Amino acid sequence: MKKEIANFDYYNPTHIVFGKNRFSDLADLIAADKKVLILYGGGSVEKFDTLSKVREALNGRTIGEFGGIEANPTFETLIEAVDLVKREGYDFLLAVGGGSVIDGTKFVAAAARFLGDPLDIFGNGVGASKPVKEALPFGTVLTLPATGSEMNSGAVVTIKSKKAKVSFGSPVTFPVFSILDPELTYTLPERQLANGVIDSFVHIMEQYLTYPVGAMVQDRYAEGLLQTLIEIGPSVVDEKNHDYNLRANFMWTATNALNGTLNKGVPGDWASHSLGHEITALYGIDHARTLAIVLPALLTIRKKEKFDKLVQYAERVWHLTEGSNEAKVDQAISNTGQFFESLGAPIYFSAYDLGEEVVDALVSQLEKHQLTAISERGDQTLEVSRAIYTEALKSK
Amino acid sequence: MKKEIANFDYYNPTHIVFGKNRFSDLADLIAADKKVLILYGGGSVEKFDTLSKVREALNGRTIGEFGGIEANPTFETLIEAVDLVKREGYDFLLAVGGGSVIDGTKFVAAAARFLGDPLDIFGNGVGASKPVKEALPFGTVLTLPATGSEMNSGAVVTIKSKKAKVSFGSPVTFPVFSILDPELTYTLPERQLANGVIDSFVHIMEQYLTYPVGAMVQDRYAEGLLQTLIEIGPSVVDEKNHDYNLRANFMWTATNALNGTLNKGVPGDWASHSLGHEITALYGIDHARTLAIVLPALLTIRKKEKFDKLVQYAERVWHLTEGSNEAKVDQAISNTGQFFESLGAPIYFSAYDLGEEVVDALVSQLEKHQLTAISERGDQTLEVSRAIYTEALKSK
Repeated sequence: MKKEIANFDYYNPTHIVFGKNRFSDLADLIAADKKVLILYGGGSVEKFDTLSKVREALNGRTIGEFGGIEANPTFETLIEAVDLVKREGYDFLLAVGGGSVIDGTKFVAAAARFLGDPLDIFGNGVGASKPVKEALPFGTVLTLPATGSEMNSGAVVTIKSKKAKVSFGSPVTFPVFSILDPELTYTLPERQLANGVIDSFVHIMEQYLTYPVGAMVQDRYAEGLLQTLIEIGPSVVDEKNHDYNLRANFMWTATNALNGTLNKGVPGDWASHSLGHEITALYGIDHARTLAIVLPALLTIRKKEKFDKLVQYAERVWHLTEGSNEAKVDQAISNTGQFFESLGAPIYFSAYDLGEEVVDALVSQLEKHQLTAISERGDQTLEVSRAIYTEALKSK
Repeated sequence: MKKEIANFDYYNPTHIVFGKNRFSDLADLIAADKKVLILYGGGSVEKFDTLSKVREALNGRTIGEFGGIEANPTFETLIEAVDLVKREGYDFLLAVGGGSVIDGTKFVAAAARFLGDPLDIFGNGVGASKPVKEALPFGTVLTLPATGSEMNSGAVVTIKSKKAKVSFGSPVTFPVFSILDPELTYTLPERQLANGVIDSFVHIMEQYLTYPVGAMVQDRYAEGLLQTLIEIGPSVVDEKNHDYNLRANFMWTATNALNGTLNKGVPGDWASHSLGHEITALYGIDHARTLAIVLPALLTIRKKEKFDKLVQYAERVWHLTEGSNEAKVDQAISNTGQFFESLGAPIYFSAYDLGEEVVDALVSQLEKHQLTAISERGDQTLEVSRAIYTEALKSK
């Protein structure tokens, strides 16, 4: 039977405020009578004056601050912010940072208005997964393009006490606004820039590289974003290259990669993230770098299941038009790996001095987390995941 | 100096409800306590049962109906709906139809809450152009993909008494939701399908075919939508071809063509619409068909000013990679005209039995409407517009 585009809903009310020197808009974006809590992570927003610009724009307002949100934001830290909000009566939150601070702020916004145990905001075996029907309004000032959290309603939180990484999302946890100033990326080091490019690239691939259902707009948009990242990636990771358009295109691509545009009516395959998360958990490798290890191996092992879309990917994204489909697909997969390597991200475990011992350990983790039937068709068993990890051990 | 992507704001809160059999969602999309006025145009929504499906979905609610909104909705008709809303106390509007009904409903929603003379909602020499700060909430059921009105906040209204076509827009006149059911297009005749494809195509071109500023995402999205229309257009206009994906891709492309995604941070050139409107006003040719006459001639006359982007258009949209840039550009312009002709829309006045007498008449109208310095650089003078109309007289 011919595949059809599935029914879908699209809803994204976030007001994007994009460009240079948009901090002054903060005064208009947040109603004057709001009591604002600014949330941030570590020292970089302090060091690079982002926080002082925010404070200046909100001069004369009643504001408070909550710093110290971790790179993988923890429930234990965030619940302190929830208490602060309740105790001091804040009614607007402002996240200043990257995806972790924004994700953390989404949880604080929801938990501050949630009746009952805040753990029940989550599912994943941690809580009862009760729907979040109300949340404090919040805005964001994005400092690190990567996760897309600035224009979606989802959040990932780590519960230290349960050694669990869990997620939630709700129609009420979209940011009211997000300030996207490409010049804020000028202070980012190469490693974070590379991670942002890779994370965005894999987000797009996870919504695109499945099987064709004939969703022409969604496919063209995904292919456009992938081509953009391939074109600019190697320049973006040059931390000294402060070309404005370069960083603006990077920032807008990363936001579009996960703002609900690409996944409408099409299947998704989030197996790269699932397999990558286990690598981070066991060996502490950066999230994006685990994706660089997993994706090329996954495409190799899943070539048969993904063949039709891989041909399309080869032709439209990599402009490979010569030779057999088989040859085009192999070249496209090879190009994908080389692209990650060109950004400074190795695609084999061997580069991290990890050997075949990782395979059993990682597969056990997948089993423990019941990730035994993943991918767009639910047919990625533990044996298939084992083959993917094995494929990624070392260059042949 | 190198062109940079301009600062921009993106905000679009419309909830899109896309797919088959989504009418039943109406009961959830409109709060139970709302008193709903259904607005529509002529007989087709009655004839093809769309209205009865809407009535059925809202069974048990307090509803009213207002029909007879014209293809170019008039102030004189709409103000009757405004009176009805005020008199009977409706607090939610539901537009069932194409761009005209939706545009008209936007005006009714704004005027019902507007203090003072409703003509002041408009500028264009007709009113004082006071900002619309409040509007009744409204939803739409789209029956004709073309204008994009179902996912933007703008509206065009004709004021019969002043022989004027005027427009307005406001952040409060986005539809709350729009139901996009591709199967509703199955009853459309070839002529309306072709008009929808052409109108969408030209909307995209007006936001894309200017001069490059390096906005890679916006360019890739525009090119993706143009390629989609080129690929499916000839099949879409076959009114008997009820392939679901075909119509779904057409509908989603038309919405994306004017939902505020493509124009972010880039210049726009709405001269095709300006020159086309005068043709409709004087000779009664369908809006989209006037665009088919204007655009190829405009690209020919403005080749020098638009050269860089025309090369990009030729290479990426028409995949013309051989020969000189000049040759590629000429071929791309020729292909554009042939594409419109393949949809049954002539690209010369001669096909409508109109000759050179039209040129003076149309240029006089442009002068009367002060359209003397249009296009992305404001350098399209009356003399340039005269050359465009002249170019469009007949095939050489």
